[in-house]
Amino acid sequence: MEKIPKKMQAVVLMGPNQLETKEVETPSPGPQDVLIKVNACAVCGSDVSLIEKPWEAQPPYGSFIIGHEYAGTVSAVGETVDEFEVGDRVAVEASYGCGRCRNCRHGNYTACLNYGNLKRGHRANGFTTNGGFAQYAVNHINTVHKIPDSIEFNEAALITNLGCILYGFQTIGGYVVGDQVVVVGPGPLGLIAVGVAKALCAEKIFLVGTRDSRLEMGKTMGADRVINVNEEDPLKVIREETNGIGADLVVESSGNVRGPQMAAEMSKRMGKILLVGYPEEPAAVNFSLLGMRNINIYAIRGEGWANCARAVSMLSKGRISLMPLATHSFPLANVKEAFKTFTERIGGAIKVIVHPNEV
Amino acid sequence: MEKIPKKMQAVVLMGPNQLETKEVETPSPGPQDVLIKVNACAVCGSDVSLIEKPWEAQPPYGSFIIGHEYAGTVSAVGETVDEFEVGDRVAVEASYGCGRCRNCRHGNYTACLNYGNLKRGHRANGFTTNGGFAQYAVNHINTVHKIPDSIEFNEAALITNLGCILYGFQTIGGYVVGDQVVVVGPGPLGLIAVGVAKALCAEKIFLVGTRDSRLEMGKTMGADRVINVNEEDPLKVIREETNGIGADLVVESSGNVRGPQMAAEMSKRMGKILLVGYPEEPAAVNFSLLGMRNINIYAIRGEGWANCARAVSMLSKGRISLMPLATHSFPLANVKEAFKTFTERIGGAIKVIVHPNEV
Amino acid sequence: MEKIPKKMQAVVLMGPNQLETKEVETPSPGPQDVLIKVNACAVCGSDVSLIEKPWEAQPPYGSFIIGHEYAGTVSAVGETVDEFEVGDRVAVEASYGCGRCRNCRHGNYTACLNYGNLKRGHRANGFTTNGGFAQYAVNHINTVHKIPDSIEFNEAALITNLGCILYGFQTIGGYVVGDQVVVVGPGPLGLIAVGVAKALCAEKIFLVGTRDSRLEMGKTMGADRVINVNEEDPLKVIREETNGIGADLVVESSGNVRGPQMAAEMSKRMGKILLVGYPEEPAAVNFSLLGMRNINIYAIRGEGWANCARAVSMLSKGRISLMPLATHSFPLANVKEAFKTFTERIGGAIKVIVHPNEV
Amino acid sequence: MEKIPKKMQAVVLMGPNQLETKEVETPSPGPQDVLIKVNACAVCGSDVSLIEKPWEAQPPYGSFIIGHEYAGTVSAVGETVDEFEVGDRVAVEASYGCGRCRNCRHGNYTACLNYGNLKRGHRANGFTTNGGFAQYAVNHINTVHKIPDSIEFNEAALITNLGCILYGFQTIGGYVVGDQVVVVGPGPLGLIAVGVAKALCAEKIFLVGTRDSRLEMGKTMGADRVINVNEEDPLKVIREETNGIGADLVVESSGNVRGPQMAAEMSKRMGKILLVGYPEEPAAVNFSLLGMRNINIYAIRGEGWANCARAVSMLSKGRISLMPLATHSFPLANVKEAFKTFTERIGGAIKVIVHPNEV
Repeated sequence: MEKIPKKMQAVVLMGPNQLETKEVETPSPGPQDVLIKVNACAVCGSDVSLIEKPWEAQPPYGSFIIGHEYAGTVSAVGETVDEFEVGDRVAVEASYGCGRCRNCRHGNYTACLNYGNLKRGHRANGFTTNGGFAQYAVNHINTVHKIPDSIEFNEAALITNLGCILYGFQTIGGYVVGDQVVVVGPGPLGLIAVGVAKALCAEKIFLVGTRDSRLEMGKTMGADRVINVNEEDPLKVIREETNGIGADLVVESSGNVRGPQMAAEMSKRMGKILLVGYPEEPAAVNFSLLGMRNINIYAIRGEGWANCARAVSMLSKGRISLMPLATHSFPLANVKEAFKTFTERIGGAIKVIVHPNEV
Repeated sequence: MEKIPKKMQAVVLMGPNQLETKEVETPSPGPQDVLIKVNACAVCGSDVSLIEKPWEAQPPYGSFIIGHEYAGTVSAVGETVDEFEVGDRVAVEASYGCGRCRNCRHGNYTACLNYGNLKRGHRANGFTTNGGFAQYAVNHINTVHKIPDSIEFNEAALITNLGCILYGFQTIGGYVVGDQVVVVGPGPLGLIAVGVAKALCAEKIFLVGTRDSRLEMGKTMGADRVINVNEEDPLKVIREETNGIGADLVVESSGNVRGPQMAAEMSKRMGKILLVGYPEEPAAVNFSLLGMRNINIYAIRGEGWANCARAVSMLSKGRISLMPLATHSFPLANVKEAFKTFTERIGGAIKVIVHPNEV
Repeated sequence: MEKIPKKMQAVVLMGPNQLETKEVETPSPGPQDVLIKVNACAVCGSDVSLIEKPWEAQPPYGSFIIGHEYAGTVSAVGETVDEFEVGDRVAVEASYGCGRCRNCRHGNYTACLNYGNLKRGHRANGFTTNGGFAQYAVNHINTVHKIPDSIEFNEAALITNLGCILYGFQTIGGYVVGDQVVVVGPGPLGLIAVGVAKALCAEKIFLVGTRDSRLEMGKTMGADRVINVNEEDPLKVIREETNGIGADLVVESSGNVRGPQMAAEMSKRMGKILLVGYPEEPAAVNFSLLGMRNINIYAIRGEGWANCARAVSMLSKGRISLMPLATHSFPLANVKEAFKTFTERIGGAIKVIVHPNEV
Repeated sequence: MEKIPKKMQAVVLMGPNQLETKEVETPSPGPQDVLIKVNACAVCGSDVSLIEKPWEAQPPYGSFIIGHEYAGTVSAVGETVDEFEVGDRVAVEASYGCGRCRNCRHGNYTACLNYGNLKRGHRANGFTTNGGFAQYAVNHINTVHKIPDSIEFNEAALITNLGCILYGFQTIGGYVVGDQVVVVGPGPLGLIAVGVAKALCAEKIFLVGTRDSRLEMGKTMGADRVINVNEEDPLKVIREETNGIGADLVVESSGNVRGPQMAAEMSKRMGKILLVGYPEEPAAVNFSLLGMRNINIYAIRGEGWANCARAVSMLSKGRISLMPLATHSFPLANVKEAFKTFTERIGGAIKVIVHPNEV
């Protein structure tokens, strides 16, 4: 068995927009935890956001190791853990609920009412506790999933993204066989939503965006019809190609301020809108239209109801591939370049991955 | 058996804001219809709206008899009808779906995709076909419910309101035992929502409004805590009195442009918002908050899933009373006064009822 | 346009086990119907059963044309029908609910409370009204689905089978991504259940049976693990290969008297059992086990909630193929041979199809 | 603050049917626990069963303190607990799930896959860990609920029974407004089911039993129609009084071997059967009938999804009363008499309560 060093390299947030790679103490797993030697940790939009401006219950500058999308190998297990063994290849999800609040008791741990309350047991790796841009990370076993050899670490690092979309699909009922599905916004989550809708046998999947390269990627993921809003009117196209009825499901992942209203207009009567992207500024919506059409809107957060376990299953069966999204990777030393590549979409970057143990 | 006259008195919409009481032909029931001698027909906010400006698929001026909230006695039955007999006391709901579209086939007849398409069979009494401000009205039997003698016609005329709120509660899951419920807006639907939340064993019911008289009525309907926004900050009160957690369910019935955002702020993580009132102008909402809190929004229309039958059951068992809402009534000749009383809330009017067969 | 003949050939049930192919009048479509020129009509186990002993509300001997699994071409449309045109290629489902009972109003038309009541409008083609072992058949449009050219009539004739299994999966929640699924009984419905579980991304699909040829067919449909009960103990295998937990979902389609109990034993705590096959004799079950494991059992009938439309979508997208099940076909003249082939499984017959318009 | 003694009196199971009241060490709460000074602990049928023959994962004879239905006062809190304070009046539920298995992660802690696995954290007080027939008991806070002064301890001790029935109603959908409900078996759970159906606005509640005294108690709890099977044919009565349709919901709580089949016969097409009583021997059921009627069966165990919290709410609001069921009580010294009174129904005993701290 490999020896675990006392010190490790980690990316620490020292202040707003101040990332620093430095040596820190290697953490130890608690009774229900495992220690993971991180192979791959992906950059997420929420990382960019919390680096810029602190999120709720964020650990103090100078000690906060960011990163919540990672995968690696189990290096040590807590005293009560027999579900995992040293050497297991694993991927993680971010949220461990307190287990004792009203929401957690119903299984809604991603909406834990004790968010950020360490005493009561809540942990969100990379948000309220340390995360995965480091050589090692500690995770409660509820946030850890074994992966087969057939899943590469780069793909496994993206598993929360698939888990999040699956959680969204389960939230809206989980059954879309033969349904008309529109996805707005070909970002990572939107592209995965296309793939999930395809895997779950939707009738026709429309993908709406502005950049042809991303729309092309959408076709790879399973889109039947891509609509570049600079060239076509998406409302007109969707109305026409759904026999005048509109979409059964609209997945809004653009985060654009006009997104929610556009989703309402695309929806059929009794349609559903799943929100996975959120504008920062208030968005205006014609609620009378929502009423006339009897539309439900589902805003989700995180990767709830253990959908990351389902995500591992889908990947291991080859029912969806996230590899096309893993466009770039860097060693830990180049973490700033990784973030820059991600935020500026250099070289058509979609997801950018850092390898903390790569020399 | 009473003879049915060939001609009858009815309130016909002659043009925008032009109601005229005139003699017209008494209608005949089709094979699956009944003819109802209308005892009581209530004024609804949607009547006021469509009188002012025509709604989708409205019959032409000069022939359109309005009114969709009514009750009376069966006077004749269609050839296939053995579910009803002449003399049955009945209340109605508005929507008869086409029965053949994708939505109707799933039981979602209030969201019929053939809305207003008479050829394909859709009918919405008082909206796309003739209604109940008349001595007689024809209804498909799906829109007719027998009522026991214990329910007065004035109360029976309001049954769609209760059916609508029950449909809303069924939409959000139907199970609110021990839940914290907020109702915003003490209009007829809001007051009934208070009563339904009470009947279904909610823990604490908050009612938010601006007029003390309506809030007092809310206490009669079952509100545990009324909040006059001119005197208290509803967000502060709700947060404090729910242990900092927020509401499990917010029923927004004010139709105020700030209503949806206020509902989001009142909601707990994983809370639900039920919309039964809709602002006409676009309303701004902080969708990031919806995301952070993992909130679902349910916009409903009509009184779906046969909830009017459930409404009759509740009324006949005395589990809720709508009589306090039936504040005023008028004979047919005074229909304009009835509308004025309703819209200007003269004498504290809540629901105003017209008696078409009252001399 | 092809002329419709006044007389046609049809298979009429003259008495118990007395099928006769004879000339009868060609039926005419009502206002909401289409007339279908039948290309292919499949033999179903329920045909065999009702030929032997009449079912509830069956038409009288001497006039009853059997057959409920068919596909063909629209030859004429009823007066209100603009959803279909002459020449459309279509497949059918059996049940048209009355549309006016408590169940139909909720969309549960396959559980119509007016089953067999023609006056109130219920029709079940091939059960309570005439069916498809004939050159022409009349169907209410709710029971008719357009099919693309890519779906052969032989496959389209089997669409109710897929619709039935999809209805079952929707009944149990519709979301099985990553779940362990066991199917007991490799009959047509069981084999399709394997295919649907596969299409909807189940983790591992076990198929339990007694005949190796059928189990092989199960592999073709997507089974990951087949268990011949003559060779292995299915309980032991399933327990071992699900990590000691048991199945999330057991689909019992064997109709064996020991099937329900076996399903309970295979299930995990909080598991679900979907019944699509039913023993004729009472079956003994250890209900204490059901209680200890908190198991739900879902017994379904028919192809509800418009799942035949979803079935067409799956077939047209190539997400499942029913062609391997369509093992034999015969012209109308050989209908008795068709039934014999089906019941005696001659030549490994799975589904046997009759072509009523084949010379 | 009252001092907690080092030793306490407790009822220990020494062997099959060997209860002994003896002095043992007072337990200490762990970090997420509270110590409860037990005021009242009720005898349950499962106590009787496990005294006779050990249940799964039961603690060894000589150390096992039985009892899982209790209420009392918080005497000490664990180090992380700030949700409770010493002096709080509380009631308990039995099951604390491991929180880390597939079922617990979905909120299904009463179906924990690590049942009886102490290392992984599962505890079921009075089943796999010590319970409440003692002066003090330790409970994880998830199993503890504050009660207001208006709820007597004797009633609070019965809260798991109400929680169990509420869990059952939530399992079948939770919305029974206007539904026809049959309850078979007027034991404690059956009687509470009557009360819950009443509280949730069912249309008509039938109670089926054999003893007039219990049926009378059923009327007190809210039954609209009681049927003594020695005097009337329940199937005939229910069919007639539901307009020939049958029940929307049948709650089988008799545990009789003919119960499940009788429930199927009472059910309407598309009806639901909720099982809360279970025969020990295999029960024969006509599964074809289940199929023809498209019936779902829900077997539940325990008081899941935090329904004990909802139970406290209902009791505190006076929406149901369990006091009529608390027919007898005894001090700890008379525990054997308490069990005898319960099992032999001496003096019409329904629930029998022991007061461990009563001299």
